[in-house]
Amino acid sequence: MALWVRFSRDSTTGFGTLEGESIAVHSGDMLAAPSPTGETVPLAAVTLLAPVTPGAFIGLWNNFHEAAAKQGNAIPEVPLYFLKNSRSIIGPGAAIRPPAGYAGKVLYEGELGIVIGRTCTAVDEAAAEAAIFGYTAVNDVTALDLLTADASFPQWARAKGCDTFGPIGPAIATGLNWSAARVKVALNGRVRQDYPAADMILPPARIVSLISREMTLHPGDVIACGTSVGALPMRPGMVVAVSIDGIGTLENPYAPSV
Amino acid sequence: MALWVRFSRDSTTGFGTLEGESIAVHSGDMLAAPSPTGETVPLAAVTLLAPVTPGAFIGLWNNFHEAAAKQGNAIPEVPLYFLKNSRSIIGPGAAIRPPAGYAGKVLYEGELGIVIGRTCTAVDEAAAEAAIFGYTAVNDVTALDLLTADASFPQWARAKGCDTFGPIGPAIATGLNWSAARVKVALNGRVRQDYPAADMILPPARIVSLISREMTLHPGDVIACGTSVGALPMRPGMVVAVSIDGIGTLENPYAPSV
Repeated sequence: MALWVRFSRDSTTGFGTLEGESIAVHSGDMLAAPSPTGETVPLAAVTLLAPVTPGAFIGLWNNFHEAAAKQGNAIPEVPLYFLKNSRSIIGPGAAIRPPAGYAGKVLYEGELGIVIGRTCTAVDEAAAEAAIFGYTAVNDVTALDLLTADASFPQWARAKGCDTFGPIGPAIATGLNWSAARVKVALNGRVRQDYPAADMILPPARIVSLISREMTLHPGDVIACGTSVGALPMRPGMVVAVSIDGIGTLENPYAPSV
Repeated sequence: MALWVRFSRDSTTGFGTLEGESIAVHSGDMLAAPSPTGETVPLAAVTLLAPVTPGAFIGLWNNFHEAAAKQGNAIPEVPLYFLKNSRSIIGPGAAIRPPAGYAGKVLYEGELGIVIGRTCTAVDEAAAEAAIFGYTAVNDVTALDLLTADASFPQWARAKGCDTFGPIGPAIATGLNWSAARVKVALNGRVRQDYPAADMILPPARIVSLISREMTLHPGDVIACGTSVGALPMRPGMVVAVSIDGIGTLENPYAPSV
């Protein structure tokens, strides 16, 4: 069980494990063979970054029983997913902003995120489990009015791929018992989502196994496991905080467009 | 007007311009400041690779008048796009394969591909035009039965993102008058698609400008401009060839799954 973070400090970046109010700096490949440098930096002296920069950023739709029941959706047997723009990733504290000129609804969606540790192609569930490096928190931000703007084509990639629409962090937890965790989202301190990760329809190892049958997954890829009930629009000036037991709190301001 | 290619030879990779049956090798950044090394290698001595490895691989739906009319689709005012798995990219000659266990239809779709040369955020059409490095040929391969397998969620990312489903190449043409080109697809030598690129609904500069309002585009990103009529299933053992005037022919075998 460790909490891995990436950070910037004095125009350099680094990574390491969270040890209370400090980071034990490591070198090498965080996902493969990290080794401690012996250096420790205080958390207060750094800016945390997104803990990983995925090549592929996948998001699931309709993966929680409570939300499926509420919305009248059938229970899927395979992951129903979209690809999120991998450059939409931002870290803790960075501002989420709507695109210039967009005046529609922008929703937060608090989600458990899988971080892949090893390349996997067509792996079974046991190998998929072993290929998971750890878990992080994801805010799968969505411009709802873009998603539904065209009656003939639901625009998932566009609505969820805007710049800054992929906050992840603050850490990647290894050895996490995800099924005991709750996912909570607070908007300006008021809890708006609070659901058990165990209500998930397809669990992480099955998701990884099934996706890997068709699309090879690589170290650092992130799969957001879908959200449950309570996703709501944000208004500029609000702060949105996604908390997952064992991972921490991913807090981002929602700012006006620039 | 140049034709840029990437290649491998003796376990190293390189890039350069096509000069008849040879490649004038270059060094540096192909998209920014390439400079000739003076070395020339015969085309016959190398294996051509995908000419670029995009971070983002975008594909448009419903962007040709003839196909829209035939399928009864409304004329869109904005690019209706999906994200294609950027690791599905393969080069000329590499085998397209269906996922193991998939016995449904796999379609070719011959398309003009835009290659981005400069980072662009919210650029107007003139700046978008200037940000286009060149054009390549794309085969936007699609597992049709995966796209439509779930009635509640069209699976664009999954159906188009399988490993090997993104052949591009053989070259990137700079200075191309794309509106004079025809896009042709031959299956085992028999022409099955043959449409004018000028029938495009949203032209490249407008596509780049509109997408860049929400999602920053980066050098090397590829946007497939959509296909027109004539996309059909392939059968294992067939060879599919996408030809675009001024770019060349992108030929790939369609092989059984492994």
